Amino acid sequence: MPRLATRTQTIVSSPIRRIAALLDEARRKGDIISFGGGAPSLPPPQEVVEYIAEALKRYPQKTVAYGSTRGMIELRELISQDLKKYWGVSYDPHEEIMIVNGGTEGIYLALGAILEPGDEVILIDPTYVGYSEPIRLFGGRVRYVPVRVEEGYQPKIEDLEKVVSPLTKAFILLSPDNPTGRIVTDKFVSDLVRLAKEHDFWIIFDAVYKHITYGRQTPWVDAYPGARERTITIHSFSKEASIPGFRLGYVTGPPEVIEAMEKIKQYVSLAPDTPGQIAMIKFYENGIKERYLNEVVIPTYRRRRDFMYKAIQEYLPEAKTTLPEGAFYFFVDLRPYLEAMGRDDEEFANRLLYRKSVVVIPGKYFGEMGKGHVRMTFVSESEERIEEGLKRMNAYITSYL
Amino acid sequence: MPRLATRTQTIVSSPIRRIAALLDEARRKGDIISFGGGAPSLPPPQEVVEYIAEALKRYPQKTVAYGSTRGMIELRELISQDLKKYWGVSYDPHEEIMIVNGGTEGIYLALGAILEPGDEVILIDPTYVGYSEPIRLFGGRVRYVPVRVEEGYQPKIEDLEKVVSPLTKAFILLSPDNPTGRIVTDKFVSDLVRLAKEHDFWIIFDAVYKHITYGRQTPWVDAYPGARERTITIHSFSKEASIPGFRLGYVTGPPEVIEAMEKIKQYVSLAPDTPGQIAMIKFYENGIKERYLNEVVIPTYRRRRDFMYKAIQEYLPEAKTTLPEGAFYFFVDLRPYLEAMGRDDEEFANRLLYRKSVVVIPGKYFGEMGKGHVRMTFVSESEERIEEGLKRMNAYITSYL
Repeated sequence: MPRLATRTQTIVSSPIRRIAALLDEARRKGDIISFGGGAPSLPPPQEVVEYIAEALKRYPQKTVAYGSTRGMIELRELISQDLKKYWGVSYDPHEEIMIVNGGTEGIYLALGAILEPGDEVILIDPTYVGYSEPIRLFGGRVRYVPVRVEEGYQPKIEDLEKVVSPLTKAFILLSPDNPTGRIVTDKFVSDLVRLAKEHDFWIIFDAVYKHITYGRQTPWVDAYPGARERTITIHSFSKEASIPGFRLGYVTGPPEVIEAMEKIKQYVSLAPDTPGQIAMIKFYENGIKERYLNEVVIPTYRRRRDFMYKAIQEYLPEAKTTLPEGAFYFFVDLRPYLEAMGRDDEEFANRLLYRKSVVVIPGKYFGEMGKGHVRMTFVSESEERIEEGLKRMNAYITSYL
Repeated sequence: MPRLATRTQTIVSSPIRRIAALLDEARRKGDIISFGGGAPSLPPPQEVVEYIAEALKRYPQKTVAYGSTRGMIELRELISQDLKKYWGVSYDPHEEIMIVNGGTEGIYLALGAILEPGDEVILIDPTYVGYSEPIRLFGGRVRYVPVRVEEGYQPKIEDLEKVVSPLTKAFILLSPDNPTGRIVTDKFVSDLVRLAKEHDFWIIFDAVYKHITYGRQTPWVDAYPGARERTITIHSFSKEASIPGFRLGYVTGPPEVIEAMEKIKQYVSLAPDTPGQIAMIKFYENGIKERYLNEVVIPTYRRRRDFMYKAIQEYLPEAKTTLPEGAFYFFVDLRPYLEAMGRDDEEFANRLLYRKSVVVIPGKYFGEMGKGHVRMTFVSESEERIEEGLKRMNAYITSYL
């Protein structure tokens, strides 16, 4: 066999694959309670499903035809109206919006459009497992800003200032956050934009959980003076329309960035999924999106979140966590227990699955600062089973102590 | 705005985008006859469409759920059986097959898995417009092997030997070919495999048109002794199942390559489209695929091919071309006319659209050797309209001479 490229050795696939392996292992077992997944747990809106099923039957050829690289202009126009309505910011559907094959492709293309070898990208630690490797694929280096449960997992601008350097090319902001559920403060974004202007770096604003919030909204980076020309925002339909299998999202940014991303996208995926785009045109019709989010998704997830919060306090009284303001997860500091047990978070997760059939994700997969923590999704199980899961965690820990 | 990456300047988007612009322009006009597109012109099999529409309605959540990066194992098992049946080669569905988001992603990941900066990749000239830029994105360089209409657009092993060097990392073979419709000979593949072994380079076998043939089948690279360990084969459901909008294909290769491609894919697209995969599971059921190809697709396309061949001979008697053995296209050498008209192929295509509302694709988009040629799709129009289009081409040329 001829040689493979060095890049395939330097990037690691472990966190995503280890999570997937854990979930696979879980599925093979019988009565498992999963706090592991990161996917929505509700079906997509009924009207959307019926619309696309009908379109496939009545206009099969058109519904599965090739589309253009930037995506259907009808959909981009609806997105533009929707962004204006929610965030008060106008985006040109022709020049400033591009449909992508999921938030993952959005991140990849954004990094591809801006990174030179040697450039540095600053991430918050802990953070989503999908940022560091594409940064490395494009030759970039990663720097970290730590956050802690005691401070509500809020990043501090002083910590960011410490790692900013002439090599800084971008900062990635995920708000609401995975794994912590944190929404950053207005003050932080305002300081971040000032810093980005001073040091001329990009802000990649990953807003894939923007509609999954339980009170306060996330600050909108582009709404801050001077932010537009240095911000690329990543959106996903996976979370807000519960259609992850269609691999569909979109990106906003300055026209030059969209143009650069489109160039790369031609050779990465050519075009986004057509049936998914047609389904999302329906999603924006007649308040379907608002009804779905306000009457189905948010009430369900909020109820489970509140329930799990109480259950954590009751069954894991020594653990520390914060009530998530958005997204799907509690990020729980288990160090008081783990230290007493003499186990790290990964051993804990593996044993908990083996002994009690409960899935949690080891915090160290999300970064150095995640050590001793676990991520627990609250959207996948009913209240009853959330309680059962926490009881089992309690029983497992108690059996040790 | 902070700086963009240099790579976004060095790659060109022109051919694909210029073709798209030409087709957009054409759609805005009234009665146009399109020999331009590269997409299938038939709806997908009815059973497949109804199956996926039903799945969406009955199991919406499951049908649009996240899948794994390599794709659904059920589908990979069916693919493995299908490849065995058609080509007599066994591929392990776990280790040697990966589902990708279209042939485009397959090419991208294959190049990403093998190319180091400075590596050379040999292409045939003219060739598909989507190879050279992803090669450059990964830092590779392109070398060319010319083919000519007088030799049936068949590549010669001597020409390949001339450009092979210690820097050669891969050769890309597209058979059946776009834009020429050529299927390479057994002798060529056998010599190619020998050369690849001697000089230790990869063969990327782009087999996206493998089922779109009108007589002889393409030689199957992996069936040649010693080829398996150095061949990556790219497949697409877009052409054989007429579902380009689902962005779905697959790749076969040695386990190490599949592993390396999967690593990159995690950060490029995370997973392939789930509804499309479910649809393709149905495609392999109960001979649906065979009936669709043998009774619908091939007879329709062959009739149109034969008709266009005669029409070219009748209305463009000075033009030179070959009867395509596969794929969707005639690649027509118009130099006798163009020289007399004092126009190049791009000017000819633009003026033909403007004056006669007929779309053809300029040959120079496919490479230096394509100058003076045009690509004409025969699958998009009925026989009657094919004749009308050729009449218009004749009238346009005659008005000049």
